[in-house]
Parts: sequence; C-alpha cells; structure tokens
Amino acid sequence: VLFAASLSAAAAASADNCPLFHPPCAPCKNAGFLQKNNSLDEKNRIASSFRDRQTPKNQLSCENSDREARYRRTETDFSNLFARDLLPAKNGEEPTMQFLLEVMDILTNYVRKTFDRSTKVLDFHHPHQLLEGMEGFNLELSDQPESLEQILVDCRDTLKYGVRTGHPRFFNQLSSGLDIIGLAGEWLTSTANTNMFTYEIAPVFVLMEQLTLKKMREMIGWPNGEGDGLFSPGGAISNMYSVMVARYKYFPEVKTKGMSAAPRLVLFTSEHSHYSITKAGAALGFGKENVILLSTDERGRVIPADLEAKIISVKQKGYHPLFVNATAGTTVYGAFDPINEIADICEKYNLWLHVDGAWGGGLLMSRQHRHKLNGVERANSVTWNPHKMMGVPLQCSAILVREKGILQGCNSMCAGYLFQPDKQYDVTYDTGDKAIQCGRHVDIFKFWLMWKAKGTTGFEEHIDRCLELSEYLYNKIKDREGYEMVFEGQPQHTNVCFWYIPPGLRDMPPGDERRERLHKVAPKIKAMMMESGTTMVGYQPQGNKVNFFRMVVSNHAVTRSDIDFLIDEIERLGNDL
Amino acid sequence: VLFAASLSAAAAASADNCPLFHPPCAPCKNAGFLQKNNSLDEKNRIASSFRDRQTPKNQLSCENSDREARYRRTETDFSNLFARDLLPAKNGEEPTMQFLLEVMDILTNYVRKTFDRSTKVLDFHHPHQLLEGMEGFNLELSDQPESLEQILVDCRDTLKYGVRTGHPRFFNQLSSGLDIIGLAGEWLTSTANTNMFTYEIAPVFVLMEQLTLKKMREMIGWPNGEGDGLFSPGGAISNMYSVMVARYKYFPEVKTKGMSAAPRLVLFTSEHSHYSITKAGAALGFGKENVILLSTDERGRVIPADLEAKIISVKQKGYHPLFVNATAGTTVYGAFDPINEIADICEKYNLWLHVDGAWGGGLLMSRQHRHKLNGVERANSVTWNPHKMMGVPLQCSAILVREKGILQGCNSMCAGYLFQPDKQYDVTYDTGDKAIQCGRHVDIFKFWLMWKAKGTTGFEEHIDRCLELSEYLYNKIKDREGYEMVFEGQPQHTNVCFWYIPPGLRDMPPGDERRERLHKVAPKIKAMMMESGTTMVGYQPQGNKVNFFRMVVSNHAVTRSDIDFLIDEIERLGNDL
Repeated sequence: VLFAASLSAAAAASADNCPLFHPPCAPCKNAGFLQKNNSLDEKNRIASSFRDRQTPKNQLSCENSDREARYRRTETDFSNLFARDLLPAKNGEEPTMQFLLEVMDILTNYVRKTFDRSTKVLDFHHPHQLLEGMEGFNLELSDQPESLEQILVDCRDTLKYGVRTGHPRFFNQLSSGLDIIGLAGEWLTSTANTNMFTYEIAPVFVLMEQLTLKKMREMIGWPNGEGDGLFSPGGAISNMYSVMVARYKYFPEVKTKGMSAAPRLVLFTSEHSHYSITKAGAALGFGKENVILLSTDERGRVIPADLEAKIISVKQKGYHPLFVNATAGTTVYGAFDPINEIADICEKYNLWLHVDGAWGGGLLMSRQHRHKLNGVERANSVTWNPHKMMGVPLQCSAILVREKGILQGCNSMCAGYLFQPDKQYDVTYDTGDKAIQCGRHVDIFKFWLMWKAKGTTGFEEHIDRCLELSEYLYNKIKDREGYEMVFEGQPQHTNVCFWYIPPGLRDMPPGDERRERLHKVAPKIKAMMMESGTTMVGYQPQGNKVNFFRMVVSNHAVTRSDIDFLIDEIERLGNDL
Repeated sequence: VLFAASLSAAAAASADNCPLFHPPCAPCKNAGFLQKNNSLDEKNRIASSFRDRQTPKNQLSCENSDREARYRRTETDFSNLFARDLLPAKNGEEPTMQFLLEVMDILTNYVRKTFDRSTKVLDFHHPHQLLEGMEGFNLELSDQPESLEQILVDCRDTLKYGVRTGHPRFFNQLSSGLDIIGLAGEWLTSTANTNMFTYEIAPVFVLMEQLTLKKMREMIGWPNGEGDGLFSPGGAISNMYSVMVARYKYFPEVKTKGMSAAPRLVLFTSEHSHYSITKAGAALGFGKENVILLSTDERGRVIPADLEAKIISVKQKGYHPLFVNATAGTTVYGAFDPINEIADICEKYNLWLHVDGAWGGGLLMSRQHRHKLNGVERANSVTWNPHKMMGVPLQCSAILVREKGILQGCNSMCAGYLFQPDKQYDVTYDTGDKAIQCGRHVDIFKFWLMWKAKGTTGFEEHIDRCLELSEYLYNKIKDREGYEMVFEGQPQHTNVCFWYIPPGLRDMPPGDERRERLHKVAPKIKAMMMESGTTMVGYQPQGNKVNFFRMVVSNHAVTRSDIDFLIDEIERLGNDL
C-alpha cells in the first residue's frame, strides 16, 4: 500500500505547488538525464520531481502541506548520495525509497522498450570497445565509492549495451521472452533473498517447490505424482544429477569407495544430444570415451536398433551398460527420440532411462503435442527446464526422479551442523542434503507464480502458439526460392533448420567450393544482423552439414509479422553474399 | 524517467480531482486490501488511486486533463485483469506498468519493514499449516488462471509467511542482510534475463565478470591478477570445481578414460571443513573414504603435522595424495587453517592446494584482518563467496584458479553448435565451455554494482564493523554468568560459539545427565525464538560437543543493541529450562 500512499501524498503535495512542477522534457529523457554533466537546471528539475515523490508516514491527508518543507534538493540529488546513505543508515529510508523508485523507473522503461519493435534488439560493440569505456560508462572497479547518480547511470548503460532477450525479434536461444509475471516473481525472490536448503529459512518456497515438482511428475505420468526432484542451476546440472543417481542405484558403493568399486560403466546418448551428458561423464569419473554416442535418423532421432547393438557390443567387451539418455527436443533439430522403444531396450537390459526434456519437456503441458514424449512415464528420471519452452525467467530447471529417497541416498552427507534433526518442525522438508549444492537459489517462485497466473491452460496456449508460429515459418520457406531445409518434413518442435542460399550461389554445382561458400553465409548474415541490431537468430554446423540457421520460437511476444521480418532481413542482408 | 513522468502526471491529474482521492486507511493497509473479499467501497478507492497513477505517453503537461478520461475502473481493477492482459497483449502496456508498480509497492514496503526492528523476523508456521492453506493463501496450482488481484495477494502472503533474512536480528546463516544496491542489481539482472555462456548475449556481464574476477585475484595476491575463474552456483560447486581442476592438472587422461586411468587418488580436508569437499569426492568418483579428514587444534584449525603424517601414510599404502583443502573461515568456529604451513607441505609433496574461503574470503578486503589468510597467494585455487561475508545477495560465489586455461582444458567439450568459432568478435570471451553448466545465471552484476557503489573501502568498513560487533559479543558473554565459550580466546572470524546454561543446570555436576540436558537447551530456545519470531540464531553439535549456539554477523544493519537483544532473548526464553 506504500506506493499508493506515496502517490496520493505526492498528488496532494502537487495540488499545492503545481506551478513548480516540471515534467521531464523529451530530449533529456533520451539523453540519460542522470549523466554527471547535468546542467544545474536539469538537476533542479530532477530534484523537484523527486521532492514531490516523498511521503512521510502517517501524513496521508490531501490537505497536508507542511510536509513539503522536509524535502530539499540536497536530500534528493543523487550526485551527493552514496550507498552508505541508504538503509540501514539513519534517515536512510527516504533516499532508499527514492533510489529504488528510480531503479524501478529504469527497469519499467526497459520492459516497455523490450516489447517495442521500433527499438533495436541490441547495440553491438566489440569487447575492446566496451573495455576501453563508452562515454560515461567505465567497467573498472575502484577503491572509492561512486555516487548513486553514477550507479543509476551504470544501470542504464548496462541495459543499453546489453541484448534484449525479450524482444519479439530475438530468436537466438532456446530461452527467450520476458514474462511479466515471471519478472515480478524474480524481483520478489531477490527481495526475499533466501536460500532453499532448509524449511527454516524458506518455508513458503520449499513447499512451493514440493507442490510444483509433484505437479510436474503428474504431468509426466508417474502414479500419483510420486517421486522426488529438485530445481537445479540449469539443464546441464540436472542431467548430471541423473547420471549420479543412476550410478548410485546400481552401484551405491561408488559413493564410498569411488569408481574403482564398479566395473567399467558405460552411458549412451545420441550424437544429437546436448553435450552435458558427455560433460557429466567426464566430470563424474566415467570418462568421455565411456559415453557412447548413438546414431540417429535423418531427423536427428535415436535409432533404437543402434542402441541395442551398442549395448550388446559393450557387454561383449565386459563393460557394464548403465544409463541411456533419450532426448525430448534436441538442441539443434528439436528432435524427440522414440522413448517407448528406448524404454523397451532399457528394461530388457536393465539400464537406467533418463529423458532430457530440458527443451521439449514443456510440450507435456499441451494436449496437442505431448504425444511426442510418449513413454516418458517409463523414464527413471527427467530433466525439464521451464526456463526454455515455458518462458520462465532464467534460471529454472528441474530434475525429476521416479524413485523416492534416491536423491537423498545418493547425495546426503548428514552434516549435522547444517541439518539439525532436533528441530521443532518436520525436518523431512529440509532439502539441502539431497543436493550437490549447499546453498541453493530460489528458482521456484517465479515459476509457481506464473503457473498460478496462467494456469496449466495458459502454458498450453503458449506452447501451441509457438509451435504454430514455427509451422508458419516452415510452410513459408520450405518451397521458397533461396532456401533449403536441413531435414525433410515438418519439425517436431519449434526448431526450423535451413540454409539461405544467396543468389550468387544458387546456380553453383554441388561440391566443395559451394559448401565452403555456403558455410560462410550464415555467420556473415548473423554478424550483419548483430551490427544492425535488428534481429538475432542462431546458426551452427551439425555433423557433415555446413553452417545453417536454427530458428526457434519460445517467446510469447512473437507474431507472424516477426517471422516475416526475419526472412526479409535474411534476404536483405544475404542478397549480395 | 518514466516514473517521474508518471508521478508528475498523477500529480497533475489529482490537482484536478483531489476530492476524489482517498488515501488508504490504516485498517485496510494491514488487512491486505487486495483480498478477494474486498468491499465495493474499497475497490472503488483502489481503482481511483490506480487511475490517478496513469500516464499516457507524450501528454505530460500539468494542464492536461482529458487524459484522465482514458482510465476507468474496469481498466485498473486487478480482479478483472489476468496475465494474458499484460504485455505483449494489445494495449497491455498500461496494465503491465500498473501491475509492476503494484509489485514494486509490495517489495519496497517489505524492504522498509525489513529494517524496522518493531517487525518480526518471521511469522512461524508448520509445514502442514501452510499446506492446508492460510486464509486467502493457497499453494495449490490449478488449470485455470487466477486474477492479477490474487497474484498480488500471493506475493504479499509469500513475503508474510517467509523469513526476513535482512532483518537486523536474523543471525541464522552466514548469508544475511539486504543490501539495497545489491537488491537493485538483482532486479536489473532479472529484467535483463540473460545468460553468461556467450559474449554474444551477455556482452556487458561477461566483461564485468572478467574484470571483477581479476580484481579478486589481485586481492588474493596472484601476480598481476593473472589466472582464471568463474562465478558458480554456490560454494559447494566452487569447491567441486577445485577438485575437478586438480584432477585434470595431474591426471588429464581421467577426462577421457575415467577414474580407472589414475591411481587411487586421495583428498585431504579438515574435520571442521565444509561437507562439500567430501560431497565432491563422492560425486566425482573418488569415493568418500578417499577424502581424509585432518585433525584440528582446539580452535578448529588444521594441525599441519597431521596433514604430513597422513600424506605419508597414504603414500605408503600406494595411493596418490592429490589435493588439500585449507579452510579460511570454517562454518562453525570460523577458524582459519594455517595456509602457509599447509602450502609448504603441498609443495614438498606436490599436491594441489585449494583454499575454501567461501566464508572467510571477504576478509581479504580488510587491511586489518587479511593477515588471517596469509599464504592464500600460494593456493592453486580459491573459493570465495561474496554472498556471505560481503553481503551480496544470494547467489554469488567465485572459483578462482591460478593457472590460466586449465578450467577450459578440464571442462571443454567444444560443442560447435553452441560455441561457434566463426563469429565476428573475439570468441575467447565466450565462457560457456569452461563451466560444468551450460546456461549460467548472471551472478556478477549485483556484486559489480555494489563494488562500484561502496568501493573497496566500503567492503572493508563492512567487514571491520562485523568483526567488531562479534568482538563486542565475545567480550560481553565470555565471563558472564550462565555462558560457557565453546573454545578459548577471541574468535578469528565473526563466529562466536557458546552454550547458554539455564539457572537449573548451573549447579549440576559435569556428566552425562548434564550433557543430555544441555544438548536440548539450544534447540528449545531456538524453537521458542522462531515461534515468537523475535530473532534467529543457529545451533549445532560439533564432534563430541553437545548443541551450542553459533552466532555470526554478516549483516551491515546489525548494531550493538541487536547483540544485546539476542542475549536478553536467550536469557528470557532459556531462564526456566
């Protein structure tokens, strides 16, 4: 209610002194009026506008006017205020509120511009340019404090030289968009500034996490949503958890004795899968060469027969096949591995089945698309990143495990000094000992709040819409002159992979020269896009395929016009290559 | 400038209609005026106050009055607004701004109360109570969306039933306090919503991270601040990195071939050290039993001779001593291991030296206290969590490595589809392949901004002040009736460990019965503290010592009066036990 109160008092105050009140003019709005070289006039204007923002407590009547005298320019000029003047400083409340409101102004302005297609996606500079220092923006740290005025300038400049990942024409990552509810949730999380390891200091967040994980397990299809899980710092760590838990399930003695207590253990994952499975293999002591890559079909989906053949081959060598990762939504092609067929093989040979749904897990929220993950309920563990397809702010990744207690068994160290058993509440709610982290960031609240605000149906609409948009793109370019699709047929996820062939290459015969030239097209177009700041889309090679564009849609601000814009832009920039 | 503009227009508007303007009354401020059962009168008042908050763009003159007509109650009543009405919805800008300003109101109100000693630290409820649902606060998720009014209620209630970790009387964790600059930084980070893995999408943050890590390495004392590092999701993961990098340095083939390519590797860490070293040993395939705990003196510091003896013993068994962790600031006692003496032994036997300064690293910022880490410049790697002693919001933990390139060598998988070499900028700024994460949260900005705002000297003052306060506590209780110190002499860090002996136990002879009763005192007092909500402090047993209180200070809002309050409260609650 504070804010409404502040406004009412500000309004009351200005009823008395409206002539003194100068709204900021357009030029100084654009020029960053808090720059150190403000003229005195500008400073006066700023000071008066902040003065009017003030509200003493318990003085909320319209007629109150003596209050006004409390606020003088010296109190509201940020160039004379420093961090030490803010709370908990004596009389720090007013400058604190002023400062936070000013920050809020910067942020809401940024939010508005993010959705405004007339703004750039980015204002590109090379590292050396930013390091040398842009006007008024110096990244170096010093011994002495800077004024709050400079801090506010730094906040503006940080956003100015950054990338608007929520812009409707930012297509560069699997995570994009700026969800307003999620943003509010993340602001609240920052303000609460607590830690997930015990119920004691995060009672509400710990319960939200439990309820949300249960709901996710229900969507996976595990009976009654039973099982376990955690939010972790990203899909790579979630995948790492799955490997750790699989090892603990089959060879619990490794926890105590190390890898030498087990036979040579082998993990399987597709050649199109995310590199984090191999990274986990290297980190956890399996070794990269014991992570065997499975062949895929032309659409990037694991060939089950190849899995079975490789399991048999490994067993013949005397090694122990432990774990299979099936990807639900690969990074580049957006392919969904055939989970049921893989699950049959895992059951036959007694392997742990993990489904990496970091990217594709969100499709479980859609009645229309969830069939792409058929069989996921047979998995032993699932990675699912709401921060990707579901538009939750970064970071928000869940590892879900079907067997209850196994996360605890795998990771607990029973540190009595952190997790006391003799508390007055039910300490099974303390999650810290299940994690490989000690402190753990609160990633749940924004997601929980979005789920409340959108409902399951809201997520479903979001996902269906993104997939429709990518279908629109696919239909638009699949037969268009100058485009070649990387794989045939409609994509399974929002990933649309294609080459743009500039006019100068269209008549070239296939061969190395054409390949070499085509390989350079996407990087060149991308560099020009970034320099003009109009849009961003990813590219990469894959296997023996030269660089191609990978278009993805996960931002709910995107419309067909943005898809059209991207294609126009590629053609505009690539026409002369 | 948006916000000032909004205010000026609101002020201008109310100059015309001040009689319509009702500030919220005290009762509805306390009752949560956004509850669903608002009376119509209340809703009218709310609607009118929001209406006055509106500002159309480019209509900023004091005389403008027709603008007012644009905002009617139906547009500003959150009970009829839903997430789908916010941006990117058509005409979504106004409700978005209103909603975010309302959230901001909730948050700034929370910030003000956090520093207000007349508020409680927490409003304790058992898990089952919160799960059953408090009035108007239901944690369950549903298929259908909730109104924004309910979402705002949920935000208020989430804070209401949480724990004020920034309250001057919250002493429960090593991380406490609510730094206003850090908070602003975290809000901005959430709004920017990007990811640290490439310069491409986080140009400013990537450079800030590099500069800040260099500065930290300079403070450690590595020549020219050379070396490498990353911010990671907490001290446990930072410590895990140190073990991985040590293994890669001595046995790089483990990355490819797994642990079977190396001899039996042994890690050493003190019995007082954080459990994350042992956890890393278990996770990375060394096995818990190959993490050898070192004996400490009565103050909790490693005895170097014990380290050397254990290294020799391990070698005699044919195992390979790999890694020593020296703790700079243990979790319970706040002890600093003698780094120089440990470094001598590491050099003699060719072991990797890691310093876990998660808790004590901040003392490097203080000319008065940095000697406690003498020898840290000889370490091969250092963990340092600015989110602990330096008051940076959670999470902010750095792993710093003296040898450049080794993080990359250890962790890179060269995923061409994520880290393209053919970009237009210097791709050595892409950090993703150094990390075990793929996406990585932006933890740097809040810390960078605080450093700018406080300067190195500001951190120094903060640290000196916290240590003074703990000296004050130590001097106050060391000879006070009813207190026993857990170890003799002035603590090295802010940790003050003590038993409170209730009057009924003071005359009991030493023995099992007294121990058993004393063991229950701290948990009982803690439970009563939490139920009364007045303060929070940690307790735990350690070795053969029964439960004792561990007091720590890292919050810059704490004063001597808060220390006095804690002692009074312990005595008030514990008097009759």
